[in-house]
Amino acid sequence: MSAVFVLNGPNLNLLGTRETAIYGTATLADIEAALRAQGERLQLLIDFRQSNHEGDLVDWVQEAGGKGAGIIINPGAYTHTSIALHDALKAVRPPKIEVHLSNIHARESFRRTSHVSAAVDGVIVGLGAEGYGLALDAMRRLIDKVRR
Amino acid sequence: MSAVFVLNGPNLNLLGTRETAIYGTATLADIEAALRAQGERLQLLIDFRQSNHEGDLVDWVQEAGGKGAGIIINPGAYTHTSIALHDALKAVRPPKIEVHLSNIHARESFRRTSHVSAAVDGVIVGLGAEGYGLALDAMRRLIDKVRR
Amino acid sequence: MSAVFVLNGPNLNLLGTRETAIYGTATLADIEAALRAQGERLQLLIDFRQSNHEGDLVDWVQEAGGKGAGIIINPGAYTHTSIALHDALKAVRPPKIEVHLSNIHARESFRRTSHVSAAVDGVIVGLGAEGYGLALDAMRRLIDKVRR
Amino acid sequence: MSAVFVLNGPNLNLLGTRETAIYGTATLADIEAALRAQGERLQLLIDFRQSNHEGDLVDWVQEAGGKGAGIIINPGAYTHTSIALHDALKAVRPPKIEVHLSNIHARESFRRTSHVSAAVDGVIVGLGAEGYGLALDAMRRLIDKVRR
Amino acid sequence: MSAVFVLNGPNLNLLGTRETAIYGTATLADIEAALRAQGERLQLLIDFRQSNHEGDLVDWVQEAGGKGAGIIINPGAYTHTSIALHDALKAVRPPKIEVHLSNIHARESFRRTSHVSAAVDGVIVGLGAEGYGLALDAMRRLIDKVRR
Amino acid sequence: MSAVFVLNGPNLNLLGTRETAIYGTATLADIEAALRAQGERLQLLIDFRQSNHEGDLVDWVQEAGGKGAGIIINPGAYTHTSIALHDALKAVRPPKIEVHLSNIHARESFRRTSHVSAAVDGVIVGLGAEGYGLALDAMRRLIDKVRR
Amino acid sequence: MSAVFVLNGPNLNLLGTRETAIYGTATLADIEAALRAQGERLQLLIDFRQSNHEGDLVDWVQEAGGKGAGIIINPGAYTHTSIALHDALKAVRPPKIEVHLSNIHARESFRRTSHVSAAVDGVIVGLGAEGYGLALDAMRRLIDKVRR
Amino acid sequence: MSAVFVLNGPNLNLLGTRETAIYGTATLADIEAALRAQGERLQLLIDFRQSNHEGDLVDWVQEAGGKGAGIIINPGAYTHTSIALHDALKAVRPPKIEVHLSNIHARESFRRTSHVSAAVDGVIVGLGAEGYGLALDAMRRLIDKVRR
Amino acid sequence: MSAVFVLNGPNLNLLGTRETAIYGTATLADIEAALRAQGERLQLLIDFRQSNHEGDLVDWVQEAGGKGAGIIINPGAYTHTSIALHDALKAVRPPKIEVHLSNIHARESFRRTSHVSAAVDGVIVGLGAEGYGLALDAMRRLIDKVRR
Amino acid sequence: MSAVFVLNGPNLNLLGTRETAIYGTATLADIEAALRAQGERLQLLIDFRQSNHEGDLVDWVQEAGGKGAGIIINPGAYTHTSIALHDALKAVRPPKIEVHLSNIHARESFRRTSHVSAAVDGVIVGLGAEGYGLALDAMRRLIDKVRR
Amino acid sequence: MSAVFVLNGPNLNLLGTRETAIYGTATLADIEAALRAQGERLQLLIDFRQSNHEGDLVDWVQEAGGKGAGIIINPGAYTHTSIALHDALKAVRPPKIEVHLSNIHARESFRRTSHVSAAVDGVIVGLGAEGYGLALDAMRRLIDKVRR
Amino acid sequence: MSAVFVLNGPNLNLLGTRETAIYGTATLADIEAALRAQGERLQLLIDFRQSNHEGDLVDWVQEAGGKGAGIIINPGAYTHTSIALHDALKAVRPPKIEVHLSNIHARESFRRTSHVSAAVDGVIVGLGAEGYGLALDAMRRLIDKVRR
Repeated sequence: MSAVFVLNGPNLNLLGTRETAIYGTATLADIEAALRAQGERLQLLIDFRQSNHEGDLVDWVQEAGGKGAGIIINPGAYTHTSIALHDALKAVRPPKIEVHLSNIHARESFRRTSHVSAAVDGVIVGLGAEGYGLALDAMRRLIDKVRR
Repeated sequence: MSAVFVLNGPNLNLLGTRETAIYGTATLADIEAALRAQGERLQLLIDFRQSNHEGDLVDWVQEAGGKGAGIIINPGAYTHTSIALHDALKAVRPPKIEVHLSNIHARESFRRTSHVSAAVDGVIVGLGAEGYGLALDAMRRLIDKVRR
Repeated sequence: MSAVFVLNGPNLNLLGTRETAIYGTATLADIEAALRAQGERLQLLIDFRQSNHEGDLVDWVQEAGGKGAGIIINPGAYTHTSIALHDALKAVRPPKIEVHLSNIHARESFRRTSHVSAAVDGVIVGLGAEGYGLALDAMRRLIDKVRR
Repeated sequence: MSAVFVLNGPNLNLLGTRETAIYGTATLADIEAALRAQGERLQLLIDFRQSNHEGDLVDWVQEAGGKGAGIIINPGAYTHTSIALHDALKAVRPPKIEVHLSNIHARESFRRTSHVSAAVDGVIVGLGAEGYGLALDAMRRLIDKVRR
Repeated sequence: MSAVFVLNGPNLNLLGTRETAIYGTATLADIEAALRAQGERLQLLIDFRQSNHEGDLVDWVQEAGGKGAGIIINPGAYTHTSIALHDALKAVRPPKIEVHLSNIHARESFRRTSHVSAAVDGVIVGLGAEGYGLALDAMRRLIDKVRR
Repeated sequence: MSAVFVLNGPNLNLLGTRETAIYGTATLADIEAALRAQGERLQLLIDFRQSNHEGDLVDWVQEAGGKGAGIIINPGAYTHTSIALHDALKAVRPPKIEVHLSNIHARESFRRTSHVSAAVDGVIVGLGAEGYGLALDAMRRLIDKVRR
Repeated sequence: MSAVFVLNGPNLNLLGTRETAIYGTATLADIEAALRAQGERLQLLIDFRQSNHEGDLVDWVQEAGGKGAGIIINPGAYTHTSIALHDALKAVRPPKIEVHLSNIHARESFRRTSHVSAAVDGVIVGLGAEGYGLALDAMRRLIDKVRR
Repeated sequence: MSAVFVLNGPNLNLLGTRETAIYGTATLADIEAALRAQGERLQLLIDFRQSNHEGDLVDWVQEAGGKGAGIIINPGAYTHTSIALHDALKAVRPPKIEVHLSNIHARESFRRTSHVSAAVDGVIVGLGAEGYGLALDAMRRLIDKVRR
Repeated sequence: MSAVFVLNGPNLNLLGTRETAIYGTATLADIEAALRAQGERLQLLIDFRQSNHEGDLVDWVQEAGGKGAGIIINPGAYTHTSIALHDALKAVRPPKIEVHLSNIHARESFRRTSHVSAAVDGVIVGLGAEGYGLALDAMRRLIDKVRR
Repeated sequence: MSAVFVLNGPNLNLLGTRETAIYGTATLADIEAALRAQGERLQLLIDFRQSNHEGDLVDWVQEAGGKGAGIIINPGAYTHTSIALHDALKAVRPPKIEVHLSNIHARESFRRTSHVSAAVDGVIVGLGAEGYGLALDAMRRLIDKVRR
Repeated sequence: MSAVFVLNGPNLNLLGTRETAIYGTATLADIEAALRAQGERLQLLIDFRQSNHEGDLVDWVQEAGGKGAGIIINPGAYTHTSIALHDALKAVRPPKIEVHLSNIHARESFRRTSHVSAAVDGVIVGLGAEGYGLALDAMRRLIDKVRR
Repeated sequence: MSAVFVLNGPNLNLLGTRETAIYGTATLADIEAALRAQGERLQLLIDFRQSNHEGDLVDWVQEAGGKGAGIIINPGAYTHTSIALHDALKAVRPPKIEVHLSNIHARESFRRTSHVSAAVDGVIVGLGAEGYGLALDAMRRLIDKVRR
């Protein structure tokens, strides 16, 4: 049983302490724990990671491309600036879902440009920590479809 | 028990026949049926509608603002051109989720501008007919939160 | 004695309940009543309407072009998106004044583009419900000028 | 023998009275009569309609997609603002020709953007009421080609 | 009883002689006289000034901020270029209304950018010399509201 | 009996061999032959030319201005880049129709800018080789109108 | 015999000392002296002025409009930012020529925008101090034409 | 005694017949004759040419670079589109002056972009046929300066 | 011992009363007093001025260019609109530092364009009244460097 | 006593060798030494670092957010491209000052866009290595204010 | 053995004399000679041409399309303005390589737009006269691949 | 004998497996092997590296600047987003050539912006794995030139 990679970008390690009005009070550890529990129910292993380095995210997407069942990615600020991440996601086969905690469409204009969205299957925005859970539900079905 | 309004914009009545490579083969009736079933499980009534008229969508959002429990809206092409819809959504209180069947970020550039997204709570894009189901799951929780 | 058409666009029926910090607490019925009273003093009949449908507004502008004495129009969000309304207003002869309750120049940037303003005689912005009254005063004089 | 739908957008019902220097003195009824006569010669039924409502045009394009032999459309101002119409035209199979009475390329700059042209087979611009007749000639041949 | 400052920007001293097709034949002195008469009826003193110097207008707005009851300003061409005027208006408390004689929305595109409108309460455009009178009527009410 | 000039721009000499999916299999000689036959029926001489040189097209438009009855022009790629051609067409009196074989609105974005369209009477786009025939029909009527 | 106003904008009083590689070593006094001598030959009085204040230039253009025979203006940096100057020049009748010492087209991009050029008869750029002399020659002829 | 090349671009051969409200009634032959007479007074030979071909203008600029004393060029529409002409002018040593008959700054916006102006010494705009004469006066002085 | 000119632009005379949340409660007189004290310690005379007139600022920069030891300038709103000020600063030799009290990068987008910054040596932004003191410290060193 | 983090971005390790005309001859070690000495006088510990990795800078800003007294950051080229750095700076509480050695406003246009400036308290630009010292002076006061 | 066409655009005939700091001292004849020698080694005939006329380049590309083995093209300034050349290159089958002597990416911004690059196989920029030799090496391999 | 650094950016490690229609089937190891062989013939050591981290590429460019003979760099997606890489390349002395496997000019529009090209000597695009070989040939000559 291969894992779903859940990759988190820059500053997401601050979750729960940073601008809680926007991002909520759940920490990244809370999200990981909830996902693991849900993963067990859905029979999906979770490989949960965070980095502030664009290059790490590219490395991990490639790694997931080689051995993962799917990729859930919250690229944080790299959403808006990273073509490298776009290319990595474009290059790998497993299903891919992008998640954002806050509604990036209702914030600064520079958050409305995304280099990543065009390279994934689906995008879930603005539904808080629960967006990860919805993504995992959707991932279960995408994986099943691919395997059929 | 008040209803979740599920509002569908222009050309979504063609679903299942139009550009199936992009939009899939499920019809709007299929989606409605699936949502109703899921609604029963979640104890949510579903008020499911479709129109090609921007004004109808504005009317319905207002109606849902007065008596609905939540709004799930796929504004179709009006996503990109309707400030009237933006204003209507901004003006009403129930939780609101925007859904798109296809990944609008991976298509023509004019589909990347959204007037609606900034006026809703969350957005689910590119996950096909199942995006509606995910939206209903999320809506259940948003309604519960509001009521608490 | 023919009437001055007072045409109100999308979401103006919510007036008095929606974002009262921006739009004030007067309802559209309050505005209509005040205008009728003022109309009596100025010897002007008032034909007061509201719709969320762009097409209705176009229909009504044409109708006013045929039998109205003047047009006061608050096109709401269609101000920023409707060239159809621009064309209708351009095509009819009676004096035309555009009214906005809030100061659209001090809000989101997409509210600073107007397709309607170039097709009317005058524009009154940001003076709240009283902007309608000022428009009716101005209309009285425009009608008199046309008739001379 | 199924019909060619000839669909006319906002303000075209004013034809012959509105800005005759730009649009000429022929009324929409004149154009309809001429097209019916030409249709008889070409063995084509004509279903001729006009509306100021974007949604009506979308409805009718869908209807024509189901039972029409071809679509000739003068979308008026919706040419420049309606992605819903673009999507409807893209979604239906019969041959489609866009017509404009005036030369929209020689007028205001906002008339040079078209959302519709990319979704039709051909476009005829600036040749006045006779543009409809040319479109019908061309439609005859497109229908024949499709049937072959 | 403190005065309403009526401030006029560059080239408005030419009124009545310059491009009368656009600006009408009333001179600035005519407008001043009419406003004084109206001011008497409304119990408002009028302090009426004109300058071609951006700095004078900024000085006067500050002066009005200190001792005036309200500001009616026709900034002329500085509407489109002066952030200094924007800042001055933003910085002072009395009610502020911007007036333009001609419909600036129906002229050259550079007249559609305004740095001033976002810093005033209301804007009256295109209603000729009578726009000043409407502004004074509106100012009376704004002053009363502030005092209440 | 003076001639209708039919002027063809760069790369149209490759017609029938180049990108036939876009441009069809008719050669320029086929189009010329068809036009000559149609011209005989319409009592119009045809002066048919092609060049890859912008200057030749300008020379010929001027020549047609001096002695031609009308101009049908397919400027090819110079549509998008030649102001010289715009000026030449603007400067001459006979009726002018622009033709494009393919639907330039449905191709690369740089093909949506036209310097020529604003300088002609009408434009026919996307109707293949038959677009020339339609243009000749329309030209017959334009010439008759001018002469009346 | 009324005078030709020669109006010089900001920083031109530094001529001969400031960036001599761009502006040359002639001082403004040198230019004035040369123009006076040339004016005597051409029977033209010269009223030569300089100011760093936009408002002064507007005042002087108006003054020249009332009593001058012509206006030669080097608006310096106000070329690129002053709509007030544009309006003043548009509003006055005598012939108007704009002069720039350096070739503003070969410098920073912000020097390529001019609000003034559209409001004058002619523009002479890049020919150094002699540009003023050429302008005076041209002015002599423009004045003669106007008087004829 | 080498010649001053006076090079005229597309459609200038139509001068005196084309849009005389903009370009005046002098023909290109009139301008040539006047320049030759003036050239004799200034001891300058005139080599006067016109072509509608961008390539001819480039050829001639190069030729003038090799054997001419100076270049006066009215590039017509190529002003706005020809980087080849920019490069040719940049590459040659003799003094260069650009002339435009009409005030291109007061016309269509596409005439406000110039690729040529940055590659010449000076520009004279809007002074009609006399602009050529002013350019020749200025050229006399530029040549003298270079020789000194 | 020549003076450091400290020049303050429009609305800075309102300091301490205007939008204190943004600009702080120190008045311009407070800043002047602090600078004079600091100047004594640094052996620098202070010539402290304020004007709402762009032209005054240009005059003063030129004056400082002639007799000042350095220029500290807070151009207020003219930062974003004055090329005249850019040119004046470019034209003078003494060291120049631009100061802004508030962080203009974190405010309205029109405050992010600066015409002045490219013409000074250094810029200090967002550090409140103390920014002037830092500028004076830096000026002391720049003057010493120049003199060495 | 907690430390002020002084964080240096890409290529600043080359200081003193790279483009010395722009950046000066001081090395990063020189700057560090000077800051340490100044820090002792101001009773501030200095934690001085450099990296070419965007992710390192984000990591360090977070670390400083947890345990530092303040942040002085010269983000080098990441100034113009890193939203991740913007987010990190926005997320942490200690005072933040951005420093640039050269005047980025007087260089290539791409250096005028900053993603970082809107997320710091103040910005010091163009004052060379001494800009760090000024920043430390300012930081001392900001820290004192925060603690009060 | 068919030839490789080596086509050179406007002003390349000036090579070796024009702006040698940018373009080097090799003449076009030097380049031709070197290519012929290299062609002999690679068993490729060289058909080497230059023209200042866009139309000639289009003609030659078409000719090469009919009978050449490959095309090496340095379109000079037409790179940035010629869609006709784009279309011609797109239309022909042999391998195509674009060469530029100077690094056009490090020069004026208008040289960074290329209409040609998207229509060729490869592009070699900034490597001087040797860029042609590298292109010929690459062409040898491309031809071999095509033939295989 | 010092080495030529051959630096490869993000996702190039996937070569041979990722989108082979665009990038070909050669792996990065194949390219390295071929380059080493060619390097031996040319007497150039090859130091071949790949990283997904922007910071690594900056580090390596600096390292090559200190001890390398030349730099061949394929920056992958960082081409379009990295100003840090631009600065690093600008800062180092050895010859620099940029290589891209695919023709980036014929792909998505965001691949047409390059921050790197302006900082290297030459660019080779679209010639596949052989582009590296051509770059090494060119590098041999650049190194020889530098040493002469």
